[in-house]
Amino acid sequence: MSHAPADALRQRHQGIRAELAARQLDALVVTSLPNVLYLTNFTGSTAVVVLTAAGLHFLTDFRYVTVMNEVRDTPYGCPDLELVTVDGSYDGALAKLLGSLKLGRVGFEGAHVTVSRHAWLADVLARERAGAAPSLIATEGLVERARLYKDEYEVRTLREAARRLSVVAEAVLGDVRAGRTEREMALAIDWRIRQGGFERSAFETIVASGPNGARPHARPGERMFSEGDVVVLDFGGVYDSYCVDLTRTVSVGRASGRAREVYDAVREAHDSAIRAVAPGRSRFDIDAAARRVLGERGLAEAFGHGTGHGLGIEIHEDPRIARRRPDADTRDENVAPGMVFTIEPGAYLPDWGGVRIEDDVLVTQSGVEVLTDVTTELLEV
Amino acid sequence: MSHAPADALRQRHQGIRAELAARQLDALVVTSLPNVLYLTNFTGSTAVVVLTAAGLHFLTDFRYVTVMNEVRDTPYGCPDLELVTVDGSYDGALAKLLGSLKLGRVGFEGAHVTVSRHAWLADVLARERAGAAPSLIATEGLVERARLYKDEYEVRTLREAARRLSVVAEAVLGDVRAGRTEREMALAIDWRIRQGGFERSAFETIVASGPNGARPHARPGERMFSEGDVVVLDFGGVYDSYCVDLTRTVSVGRASGRAREVYDAVREAHDSAIRAVAPGRSRFDIDAAARRVLGERGLAEAFGHGTGHGLGIEIHEDPRIARRRPDADTRDENVAPGMVFTIEPGAYLPDWGGVRIEDDVLVTQSGVEVLTDVTTELLEV
Repeated sequence: MSHAPADALRQRHQGIRAELAARQLDALVVTSLPNVLYLTNFTGSTAVVVLTAAGLHFLTDFRYVTVMNEVRDTPYGCPDLELVTVDGSYDGALAKLLGSLKLGRVGFEGAHVTVSRHAWLADVLARERAGAAPSLIATEGLVERARLYKDEYEVRTLREAARRLSVVAEAVLGDVRAGRTEREMALAIDWRIRQGGFERSAFETIVASGPNGARPHARPGERMFSEGDVVVLDFGGVYDSYCVDLTRTVSVGRASGRAREVYDAVREAHDSAIRAVAPGRSRFDIDAAARRVLGERGLAEAFGHGTGHGLGIEIHEDPRIARRRPDADTRDENVAPGMVFTIEPGAYLPDWGGVRIEDDVLVTQSGVEVLTDVTTELLEV
Repeated sequence: MSHAPADALRQRHQGIRAELAARQLDALVVTSLPNVLYLTNFTGSTAVVVLTAAGLHFLTDFRYVTVMNEVRDTPYGCPDLELVTVDGSYDGALAKLLGSLKLGRVGFEGAHVTVSRHAWLADVLARERAGAAPSLIATEGLVERARLYKDEYEVRTLREAARRLSVVAEAVLGDVRAGRTEREMALAIDWRIRQGGFERSAFETIVASGPNGARPHARPGERMFSEGDVVVLDFGGVYDSYCVDLTRTVSVGRASGRAREVYDAVREAHDSAIRAVAPGRSRFDIDAAARRVLGERGLAEAFGHGTGHGLGIEIHEDPRIARRRPDADTRDENVAPGMVFTIEPGAYLPDWGGVRIEDDVLVTQSGVEVLTDVTTELLEV
């Protein structure tokens, strides 16, 4: 179980209920697990929530019934939760519940319910409750858009997670030395993340040395660090269900002139993007701030990904700090207080290698708070 | 990248093409990543495959273009692969490709495409190619059903993975001792898994001691092992993209009479289920074999989950070795050579604790091969 206080959960429910009312929906079926966690603190692997104007029905199976009952009367218990124990098929239990609640318009999460599942549910509801079947209405990102704005509990958790990840990073930077392999280094990083109090690594740790650094998502392999290598280290942890993410790039031994040049450009892009963060600023403009610096240094082509992504219950969530493209989703274009995201420009040069520097930031009322805290100087180790 | 030989990939493509032909489909859009991996060896995080009668179109973004090109001419390169570099939206690129291929009936994976994604694609195709738009047809589990039957490469990989996990397990059993916490033990297990040559743990390692063992999916916490505790250890690893899974239950110090009684019942259920595995046997009957033994020992109610699940690219896949229920999916009811799954009966007694014993088995032409190899004697450590 996660640890949002019951009051925070209640406020989240009320926020979603307001969205439902605005859409004339009687209920929302929440099937996305990160969204279920956000509304209930549940961290297990299978559950479905049906949020109505008056209550919250929580479907789960025997594996999780005990823990849900145990947590119910703690400060982290989900308010107004009615537990439905599923014995057999979840969708069968869901159809039965929806039928029994006598609802009219029931929202579901269009981005999470598959075509097969929707077809099955619609079919069963129509068959079993001919005439009086609730209609299923696709909704888009109702809970995700609430999750964009971290509440006080979430900010506290992310701040602590970022502090811990910074401590891990300091230690990790001291671990890099000639003769170690990428794989050994990744293993050492994952160990430090767990020792640092994280539940687990937030994603597969990236250790990319020398030419491997040219692939932003390289997998750690058997390549051994040697004098003159530039090494990208990108790792994250999940702390009390919240994800943080950090990248540093170091030089093994003395950095070449080219390495220093690329590093300085990426570092300036990183700083420039952070300076561009403030409430009301367009997320495309934050991306552009990083991109402009790299462009001026002749590295426009070397920076193929976006400048950052939101952090929270998922390691990649909104807002996307990305290039303004003709087909870009322009909803929630401006960043606002409570948003937490990464700033991680990079430069990738085939056959040579790469550099990336990443920190996590929180948009505050007055500007920006950088949550991670590790030097961005080019370390020669 | 995963390492299925090009010939194995070719055979997989041909198998799926035969299914497409039988359904009068001109192509299959594969969006499920495990299915993409199965067809192409791709292990990255984002790609879409369009398999046609003649070719295989592979959509991915710049992050993975380099590695796809590098692997192309190796023994693990995907045959007939046409690389499409996505710059911007994947669905936009997919719609463009589908339009340009001039296809009639295009299958998609109903269990993996969301309602929103389907609506968007159908809308764009209709708008941009009015009249001549391909029609999108939902298919169910075409690739998953092929994956039920492991080919020679997959069997070899799973056998090696299970052998390695058994070595890890022997060491892990030696690590249990009074005074350690669940969390420390889980960390030690994950470390051994990585040291054992696995890419990562296949799921969040379970270490459940004393009363915590009553929750089959307990998360490791701060509880310290003490004399008389029964401890469930459930862990798995991903080896060259394939998942294996193993559980042992040990007693810290001398086991009580009750512990021995429950343990013996679960062990006999485990053995009985394995004896029930042979080509042509119903997977419901294999489950029933375990359940019968536990029922005879008064533990019917204590065994709430299924007896096993398939293993492969995913940690939980078909076949499901589960109870025969009125609403159970009866397709592929009988197990057949090449299927690999777990046998993992358990007994969970609230306030007391739990016992589970799990091995991985392969259905062979003549019967069953147990891939994992660790004693099932009750160890008192």
